[in-house]
Amino acid sequence: MTPRRNHLTRVPGLLYGGDWNPEQWPEQVWAEDVKLMAEAGVNLVTVGVFSWARLQPDADSWDFGWLDRLLDLAHRHGIAVDLATATASPPAWLVRARPELLPVTADGVRLEFGSRQHYCPSSPAYRDAAVRLTRALAARYRHHPALALWHIHNEYGDHVQECFCPASAADFRRWLRERHGTIEELNRSWGTAFWSQHYNSFEQIEPPRTAPGPVNPTQLLDWRRFCSDALLDLHRAEKAVLDEVSPGVPVTTNFMSMLKALDYWEWSRHEDFVSDDAYPDPADPRAHVNAAMNYDLMRSLKGGRPWLLMEQAPSAVSWRPVNVPKRPGLYRLWSLQALARGADGVLHFQWRASVAGAEKFHSAMLPHRGTASRGWQETVRFGTELRRLGEIAGSRLRGRAAVLLDWDSWWALELDDHPSARMRWPDLLRPWYAALYERGVTVDFVPPTAELDGYPLVLAPNLYLLDTVTADRLTAYVRDGGRLVCGPFSGITDRHDHIHPGGHPGPLRELFGIVVDEHWPIPDGATTVVRLDGAEPHTELHAEHWSEWIETEAAETVAHYDSGALAGLPAVTRNRLGAGSAWYLSCHLGAGPGPVLDLALAEAGAGAELPDLPAGVEATRRHADDGTGYLFLLNHGPHELRVPLPTPGTDLLTGTEAAGAVTLAPLGAAVIRLPAAQERP
Amino acid sequence: MTPRRNHLTRVPGLLYGGDWNPEQWPEQVWAEDVKLMAEAGVNLVTVGVFSWARLQPDADSWDFGWLDRLLDLAHRHGIAVDLATATASPPAWLVRARPELLPVTADGVRLEFGSRQHYCPSSPAYRDAAVRLTRALAARYRHHPALALWHIHNEYGDHVQECFCPASAADFRRWLRERHGTIEELNRSWGTAFWSQHYNSFEQIEPPRTAPGPVNPTQLLDWRRFCSDALLDLHRAEKAVLDEVSPGVPVTTNFMSMLKALDYWEWSRHEDFVSDDAYPDPADPRAHVNAAMNYDLMRSLKGGRPWLLMEQAPSAVSWRPVNVPKRPGLYRLWSLQALARGADGVLHFQWRASVAGAEKFHSAMLPHRGTASRGWQETVRFGTELRRLGEIAGSRLRGRAAVLLDWDSWWALELDDHPSARMRWPDLLRPWYAALYERGVTVDFVPPTAELDGYPLVLAPNLYLLDTVTADRLTAYVRDGGRLVCGPFSGITDRHDHIHPGGHPGPLRELFGIVVDEHWPIPDGATTVVRLDGAEPHTELHAEHWSEWIETEAAETVAHYDSGALAGLPAVTRNRLGAGSAWYLSCHLGAGPGPVLDLALAEAGAGAELPDLPAGVEATRRHADDGTGYLFLLNHGPHELRVPLPTPGTDLLTGTEAAGAVTLAPLGAAVIRLPAAQERP
Amino acid sequence: MTPRRNHLTRVPGLLYGGDWNPEQWPEQVWAEDVKLMAEAGVNLVTVGVFSWARLQPDADSWDFGWLDRLLDLAHRHGIAVDLATATASPPAWLVRARPELLPVTADGVRLEFGSRQHYCPSSPAYRDAAVRLTRALAARYRHHPALALWHIHNEYGDHVQECFCPASAADFRRWLRERHGTIEELNRSWGTAFWSQHYNSFEQIEPPRTAPGPVNPTQLLDWRRFCSDALLDLHRAEKAVLDEVSPGVPVTTNFMSMLKALDYWEWSRHEDFVSDDAYPDPADPRAHVNAAMNYDLMRSLKGGRPWLLMEQAPSAVSWRPVNVPKRPGLYRLWSLQALARGADGVLHFQWRASVAGAEKFHSAMLPHRGTASRGWQETVRFGTELRRLGEIAGSRLRGRAAVLLDWDSWWALELDDHPSARMRWPDLLRPWYAALYERGVTVDFVPPTAELDGYPLVLAPNLYLLDTVTADRLTAYVRDGGRLVCGPFSGITDRHDHIHPGGHPGPLRELFGIVVDEHWPIPDGATTVVRLDGAEPHTELHAEHWSEWIETEAAETVAHYDSGALAGLPAVTRNRLGAGSAWYLSCHLGAGPGPVLDLALAEAGAGAELPDLPAGVEATRRHADDGTGYLFLLNHGPHELRVPLPTPGTDLLTGTEAAGAVTLAPLGAAVIRLPAAQERP
Repeated sequence: MTPRRNHLTRVPGLLYGGDWNPEQWPEQVWAEDVKLMAEAGVNLVTVGVFSWARLQPDADSWDFGWLDRLLDLAHRHGIAVDLATATASPPAWLVRARPELLPVTADGVRLEFGSRQHYCPSSPAYRDAAVRLTRALAARYRHHPALALWHIHNEYGDHVQECFCPASAADFRRWLRERHGTIEELNRSWGTAFWSQHYNSFEQIEPPRTAPGPVNPTQLLDWRRFCSDALLDLHRAEKAVLDEVSPGVPVTTNFMSMLKALDYWEWSRHEDFVSDDAYPDPADPRAHVNAAMNYDLMRSLKGGRPWLLMEQAPSAVSWRPVNVPKRPGLYRLWSLQALARGADGVLHFQWRASVAGAEKFHSAMLPHRGTASRGWQETVRFGTELRRLGEIAGSRLRGRAAVLLDWDSWWALELDDHPSARMRWPDLLRPWYAALYERGVTVDFVPPTAELDGYPLVLAPNLYLLDTVTADRLTAYVRDGGRLVCGPFSGITDRHDHIHPGGHPGPLRELFGIVVDEHWPIPDGATTVVRLDGAEPHTELHAEHWSEWIETEAAETVAHYDSGALAGLPAVTRNRLGAGSAWYLSCHLGAGPGPVLDLALAEAGAGAELPDLPAGVEATRRHADDGTGYLFLLNHGPHELRVPLPTPGTDLLTGTEAAGAVTLAPLGAAVIRLPAAQERP
Repeated sequence: MTPRRNHLTRVPGLLYGGDWNPEQWPEQVWAEDVKLMAEAGVNLVTVGVFSWARLQPDADSWDFGWLDRLLDLAHRHGIAVDLATATASPPAWLVRARPELLPVTADGVRLEFGSRQHYCPSSPAYRDAAVRLTRALAARYRHHPALALWHIHNEYGDHVQECFCPASAADFRRWLRERHGTIEELNRSWGTAFWSQHYNSFEQIEPPRTAPGPVNPTQLLDWRRFCSDALLDLHRAEKAVLDEVSPGVPVTTNFMSMLKALDYWEWSRHEDFVSDDAYPDPADPRAHVNAAMNYDLMRSLKGGRPWLLMEQAPSAVSWRPVNVPKRPGLYRLWSLQALARGADGVLHFQWRASVAGAEKFHSAMLPHRGTASRGWQETVRFGTELRRLGEIAGSRLRGRAAVLLDWDSWWALELDDHPSARMRWPDLLRPWYAALYERGVTVDFVPPTAELDGYPLVLAPNLYLLDTVTADRLTAYVRDGGRLVCGPFSGITDRHDHIHPGGHPGPLRELFGIVVDEHWPIPDGATTVVRLDGAEPHTELHAEHWSEWIETEAAETVAHYDSGALAGLPAVTRNRLGAGSAWYLSCHLGAGPGPVLDLALAEAGAGAELPDLPAGVEATRRHADDGTGYLFLLNHGPHELRVPLPTPGTDLLTGTEAAGAVTLAPLGAAVIRLPAAQERP
Repeated sequence: MTPRRNHLTRVPGLLYGGDWNPEQWPEQVWAEDVKLMAEAGVNLVTVGVFSWARLQPDADSWDFGWLDRLLDLAHRHGIAVDLATATASPPAWLVRARPELLPVTADGVRLEFGSRQHYCPSSPAYRDAAVRLTRALAARYRHHPALALWHIHNEYGDHVQECFCPASAADFRRWLRERHGTIEELNRSWGTAFWSQHYNSFEQIEPPRTAPGPVNPTQLLDWRRFCSDALLDLHRAEKAVLDEVSPGVPVTTNFMSMLKALDYWEWSRHEDFVSDDAYPDPADPRAHVNAAMNYDLMRSLKGGRPWLLMEQAPSAVSWRPVNVPKRPGLYRLWSLQALARGADGVLHFQWRASVAGAEKFHSAMLPHRGTASRGWQETVRFGTELRRLGEIAGSRLRGRAAVLLDWDSWWALELDDHPSARMRWPDLLRPWYAALYERGVTVDFVPPTAELDGYPLVLAPNLYLLDTVTADRLTAYVRDGGRLVCGPFSGITDRHDHIHPGGHPGPLRELFGIVVDEHWPIPDGATTVVRLDGAEPHTELHAEHWSEWIETEAAETVAHYDSGALAGLPAVTRNRLGAGSAWYLSCHLGAGPGPVLDLALAEAGAGAELPDLPAGVEATRRHADDGTGYLFLLNHGPHELRVPLPTPGTDLLTGTEAAGAVTLAPLGAAVIRLPAAQERP
């Protein structure tokens, strides 16, 4: 079967390659590079991410010659180019001419040149120069035959997520004016009657620099919103130039997995497709679970469309305190995992290992040791395998349950002076995701504005900040037959972070049929026993960090507290409403909400991708437009395992027919093509 | 029996209420507030603590209308008002007009507006504005019938305890001139011959900003003294206005329990009575012991006069990392504990829970859930109980032992570059206090200048900095029959933090009849065995963090080291001098100095408030002027306990007669009125 | 036998004394000082270290009278003077007149006066004033009969090792110009093609102030080099004045043991002899091993010439969090240890304990308690013993193995973004040194440029940064019959910190006959089993923090990994090359490389100073020019031990003859004079 047209770019099949930083090497090395790329099956390279100083040697000079030669060379060898706008690291001459573009910390320290990402997001000087560079690049290369993709900037939000300089302050005031309209409205929204914080005018407002004590929480929340928007404005400015000057060429920027600083729901609206930089830690035995979660998010950001793994490490990274390499087989397995969850390509940082600079110890497709190295052999071997998988390009997978993710609520949840500082979104989310992962239930992430109808089950690990519109939509979803499971400390505040009146969970009280009398955080290290009421013998769970004194109104009790001050009170409740039901967990089941989840899954009729999946095996299924299925089976464990197959098919990695079951070696994998006829009976 | 006139204000009976911040609410809510206050028995509310921006919308405008209406409303409902001067949080317009009033850290960071307490203590701009506001409020409300009390500022020393700006530097130099007179005298006092630190003039002196290495310790000590004084000067400026404009109305400011930054002996001289903000942590099983200690200090600050618990939390606070609520019964028990140790009222932060701002998750008398909440029920129930206790207002209790507390010595003790950084005053004090608490011995705190005659036993957990006048007074106390027990690392330096000559403990050598050859700190985690010589079998204690190589001169050895480098040397000594005796502990018995204390208590004839007290029960006794006794019995434990009574009496909480013994439920309490005849036979 | 002439100064015998800071005392105390010095046998005192403010009360005044009187007094009592240039702590008047001389942190905080060492190393204002003071002192005292030694400054690199002010920036640029010549060369060396860091001119370069992310590693490495040089320039400026004005008088400055900040190989070239400040921690049971290591370095810095212990503490210091004193006997033992490793004198900080200032709790030869104290008794007792050892002055000892130490490589090794942040030079070195120490093998440290021929064994715990010249020299050493043992992560980068091409260990590949495929850091807390192949049963070692995937080319495998991802691969290899052999350890054997070392020592024929040495006894041997041996035997353990003697001799400490064996009490010592005839048969 021929590779399907890749939906991301004009390059056929799955994408394979990495960041190519040829400015670090004499040009004679480039010839070896393209020869080896061909050997490895590389078909897309990212070029120019940090080339600003080379492209524009000073304010009035441009040097495109080397890049012309490079793109020509790539094109001659059949390698497409993801061309970066090169704006993430302004050159020294610009910084010294316009020092005010350097970012400033909350303590007032202006950060120095010498690293990267040294720019104030709100700096006109920086933005003008970045847009000028983008326009020059777009104009020069828009028609170059090697050009397959525009890569804007690099990892927005890495290193610098906020700036406290006067330019940022002015931009923050502009943003506040647009959001709040009048200073009276801002005073209301921020609750400035508290602690005598009333502002007479926008001019009196500054960023939340270091202050003597706790800062106004709505100011901090607006600051988080503003900082995401300020970076997005930069991105949109470059995107607008590319769309104008180089229409028809797709544009992306590399996201950083589940990053608190940037509201990727909003950001992804401005991407032609989503791409991600993912660096799971080989030293973490649970890294693949978190990776799956991030990949599910990336796929979900544009509603299930294929995405691109823009950067991963061939082996070790260099920025952790201790950087463990990938043991043999792990690189291949983890690369396949991205495909299993909807990626249409696997790119790397970087192609050839640097000999100097802050990332010289970061692994590369072509290591320091060169082609004799184990790393190079893995690069070539996986490139070969990837070509066998070309037909999956463009196929999609869809989750069997949805998880609500709302950056606004995340930001608000993690503000200071809350009942417990342990309530962090990732920590609340992970046990839920892990329990679903272990049960083989593929998950889509959805924003609060999403259509939920298609999902039998919706999970909301936390909805701290929740407006009544969303509450109404969740209620309607349940009334119409949906199953909603919601975690604790939800329905607390409105969009200004003001407490909803009438007791928690505010606008969700009727939906869940309960009222929270008081939050009851659990001290670090302690746990509270939670006992499932229906089970026999009563299953014992353990709440950590959080519990609540709740009273049921319409709801029934599913589990109760069985130790501590709340012993005997309800812990988990279910409220039947209309055709559906709404489950409320008043505690954080850090060690695993599995048993509660099992009840909800059963009620919702939502099941695993593949029944009887052995522990340690990850299974997902992509479908092509014609209905052909691609079953990914990944063995993350140290033992050989046998996985039963639903129907016979062909293992694309080996080209062999598979029926009944397949055997997976430790760290082994299979990608089984299942004919459309059997997939959609 | 009718409630006695409260000694603190014109309000009869015990005070009950909290911070009322009505500027956070529309006026229609006020009407509900006063209705509910009446239901709960509230008779005093604190108003205006953070109202500056509302009272003075800009430099030239005043808005008193809302406060007029509020005070009228309170008065109509029989609720007295503790009116704040509102100066703790200067408004934005003032900060932007006079940015130099913002405080500056030791690193030179000027802290930003957006929180509270954002003022430099030495700023003329801030002080002038604060005094102007105070004068305006005093002039307007001095005759208002609701006004019962003036509340200056708020929690001096919270968030900002020091400022390093030029204005502070100038004020520090002024203070140094006043203290030292000449630069020659300052050079002598600071020992500037060391490390070439000589100053030619006061103009060369700056605050102890961040320096390359250890800073001159006497400079640091003078800085601590100055910082306490600088805040006190601010306080005195407001107090002077109130005394002048609104004579006859009592004035207080809310202290913050045992706070290192402020010398409360000096501060309390300027208070009409002492009030305290106390926030024991419900997650700490020993919190009630520390609370008792702080309450004893508050009572002691003005020589045993009743004090006011100005703020406590009805349940959880919101500023700890994990904020555990008060389980049922704990709020009542801990409230009674304040009364048991001399308070004449129990107020709260705050009346109605905020919906916005940095303290919206702080518990309130009226929680977010409203009157349906458990919290409101506890508020009403305790208000009812409190009315039954009205007659105890004005009664007093006096300690059976005294504990010396000297802020000057505390500051000096905790300077850097000492033999051990583990010698912190609170850590040294707590084991002693706990041992006395467990033995039922009520304690008064006394300053080094106090009359000690009335106490059979005086404890000095540490007297690092000690002038010869105090040493002489302690010696006279012992000669005249007193018993003094002193902890290690005492008598080390004079008031300039210069080592007393001739070997430690300097001016106490003769009193204790010993000499310290060398300090012998114990590494973290290690302990040294200390064995009591008289006991059979020899009681084994364990020294942590500190021991000393001492030699006895006139003293006898009470206990000796029995392990480590000092094995065989004396550890605890007693020196009989005149009619008394002086005990010296050369080590820190962190796990409890109880056995040594038992010997000293026996010798001093100082005993418990109530004999045969079951473990976990706290017992104190207040006496009215007519001799009537009020025996407080508080069960801090989880089990029902039976407590024998000395004489029959009436339990004021239940109105029932009690004889022989009373039974206390877990977290239960009794307040037994003991007739004067039986109390003073 | 009469004391031999001390090689360091004109003072005969071993030097004994300490820092004398008489400006802290009234002059009448001086008379008592010199009387007590005579009693203690003090023959050299350090004067004036912090006297700048006293010597130069303001810009235009000098006050030498007190110092004249002091030096006359010392001379009259036969006490020689080590006269300090007093420049380490510029006085207040100078700081206020020239505030730009205060140092600035990487965050831009200008550090305040009030401590010491408050100067920017590159400040012309500071340097000019320091040179002026040095010249004034030199001119006045060059002929004073008490003057035995000049003491430049104090502890360069203490507190302030770097400054980020504009003057430092300018000096850094000057230094870079000198090092790199052109900006093109700097761009190449720094690898500025990475992350768009190209500089158009030196003017664009700033010090590595706090930046948003990782800073260019070569910039950081050059910064470390510059900072060591900037302080050395200061030192050389003072040295030049002394050499010019006061020729013939030896000059030194007090080093701070193995200090990362200063390249002491370079520094020691400018010393007339090496002196050291050493403060082993009595709370550390392994402190004496580290002390031995530091003393070996001090001896090695000038090729084995006697050195001076310029400062040690008689008992406790005051700058650790917990400062444990020296238990009885420890002071004597540790003082003898310095002599055992080549010191010709033992001086202290300080003579008389201060009563004020940041070091008042630092122990002194004359403690606060005065002559009644245990400390004073130890001072006098050891002074007496030291006189008995006078004849060892000038004798030398030479190591039986060499350890390579290269500051340049140390600095580069510890840069950020390496495979593991746990690879710190001291941590890599210590297990090797400890194993050698325990085997009684005395060690010399050598720079990479050293002649290695004389050593049968050379150890290189790490050679991360290694130029090809050094690699060639090491190879020649092995070819000529030497034995080289090298630790992991070696041969990685060249002098610009660029990766050597062709796979690690770069220019050492042929020497070791291996190639490193990939670094394989071990997570914290985990270990990997390493099994020695030749041993029976196979000895099991444990690698921590670091392992490597290596492949042998010419080398044979000495030990292999026996667990983890590398199980079965070689861990330790040996390559026979020419007449010698080269051992490569690919892992960090933190718990001790002893078994590997035993093999290498046996092969090299390098043995212990004394065979059959009981565990816990340190043995070294100094030799006078005439061949007389001095065998030091030091019992660091808590038990009495018996040590066999190689030949009969005289115990200089007791004056008794010793034959067969000597008995050492716990913390006991012997210094046996072995006649030259028997020493050199």
